[in-house]
Amino acid sequence: MTSRIELIALDGIGEVVESDDLAALIADAATTSSIRLTDADVVVVTQKIVSKAEGRLVELASVEPSDFARDWASRWDRDPRQVELVLRESASIVRMATGGLIISRTRHGLVCANAGVDVSNVGGGEIASLLPEDPDASARAIREGLRGRAGTAPAVIISDSFGRSWRNGIVNVAIGSAGIEALLDLRGEPDASGRPMRATIIAVADQLASAADLAGGKVEQRPVVVVRGYSWRPSEVGASVVVMEPERDLFP
Amino acid sequence: MTSRIELIALDGIGEVVESDDLAALIADAATTSSIRLTDADVVVVTQKIVSKAEGRLVELASVEPSDFARDWASRWDRDPRQVELVLRESASIVRMATGGLIISRTRHGLVCANAGVDVSNVGGGEIASLLPEDPDASARAIREGLRGRAGTAPAVIISDSFGRSWRNGIVNVAIGSAGIEALLDLRGEPDASGRPMRATIIAVADQLASAADLAGGKVEQRPVVVVRGYSWRPSEVGASVVVMEPERDLFP
Repeated sequence: MTSRIELIALDGIGEVVESDDLAALIADAATTSSIRLTDADVVVVTQKIVSKAEGRLVELASVEPSDFARDWASRWDRDPRQVELVLRESASIVRMATGGLIISRTRHGLVCANAGVDVSNVGGGEIASLLPEDPDASARAIREGLRGRAGTAPAVIISDSFGRSWRNGIVNVAIGSAGIEALLDLRGEPDASGRPMRATIIAVADQLASAADLAGGKVEQRPVVVVRGYSWRPSEVGASVVVMEPERDLFP
Repeated sequence: MTSRIELIALDGIGEVVESDDLAALIADAATTSSIRLTDADVVVVTQKIVSKAEGRLVELASVEPSDFARDWASRWDRDPRQVELVLRESASIVRMATGGLIISRTRHGLVCANAGVDVSNVGGGEIASLLPEDPDASARAIREGLRGRAGTAPAVIISDSFGRSWRNGIVNVAIGSAGIEALLDLRGEPDASGRPMRATIIAVADQLASAADLAGGKVEQRPVVVVRGYSWRPSEVGASVVVMEPERDLFP
């Protein structure tokens, strides 16, 4: 819809800890980065800092693995406490693969490796980070926080990097959103040649998450990226609409 | 790696027809759009105009459907000639679904709906467009053409919109590329906290394709988008590396 879009990674978001006010950190980082947030922007926030701020951290030492977790972990030389957390975070197991990788469906319906349980990038080696309880609610809270602090309510997306079927490499997708239509439904609208489009529902929230990752990066990590110039459509429904109901899924 | 990236949809690419020189069209459109292409840019081109320029178009009237195609088509009220083309473009069938949708693996290894056979957006209602024979070669040809005409060799990505497992909506992915490392392998490099990353291979070509679609759009279609400010890594290997070998795929 737009001819020129900017992806701006904010500077100045330091190490995030439990109970940090992410909206305040983002508003301050925008100021530090000389960015004046507007209602037209999309703010993409990585899951990792949301989980940290929400205290979704578990000391591995506190986890008592089940026999099932112990068996699987010993078979593949994994940490049984991490396996236990993966099982606890899973609503169902999609696949337990050679090498010990577990692909599961979380309670949110997200299908990903190890149920989003991650030990990297969290201060100290023995702390696991879990996905936010309700990433759409996390996004709404950040949006409302920005409305209160910066006087503006950009769309907000919570992103995480997922593997896919049939393709190598991970890409960022939207696990939560607020304010924005995560699925852009163009069915019935005319295409470039004037004919109505049939099967065109675009997962714009996922594409925004992927775009933001290009600017935020992994190595030189900047966990908040402002997407400016993309004309999104407003919606009160979150990114949970992107989750496919298993019985409707034609792909797997 | 970069803090600010621009996605610039080029104006002035009109209707593309067989034998058009895409590099020339892109170079002219860049001039029209007051963009001076550089070696640091990534030029993302939609599959549709590549297929048109390469003459990957078939008149449905010329297609003789097999009995198998006829049966499937009549069962789901589909055009048997289109079903025949889908079968011809498929190396193997992943799923033939209620409603008549066929998900298959193309000869390139791409898993997508209807093997990329598409009747929308092509002049006349009875013309089917097929995926390029070799999208990496298509990308290389555009890159070399730009080197010759514009005196610069940006990275080139050929993009198409694919459905995914477990998630609603389509996103753009890279079906071909030239000049750029399509999979960014960060294993062993330090993360934000200085620890070496383990399982981090990022499908940057797919993320670039998704980002470009935000600017190029579907309704107001601009089929070429310049991504400026993203520090990609050079590679002579194309986007075929993103295709997962079926026997290694843990997800489906």
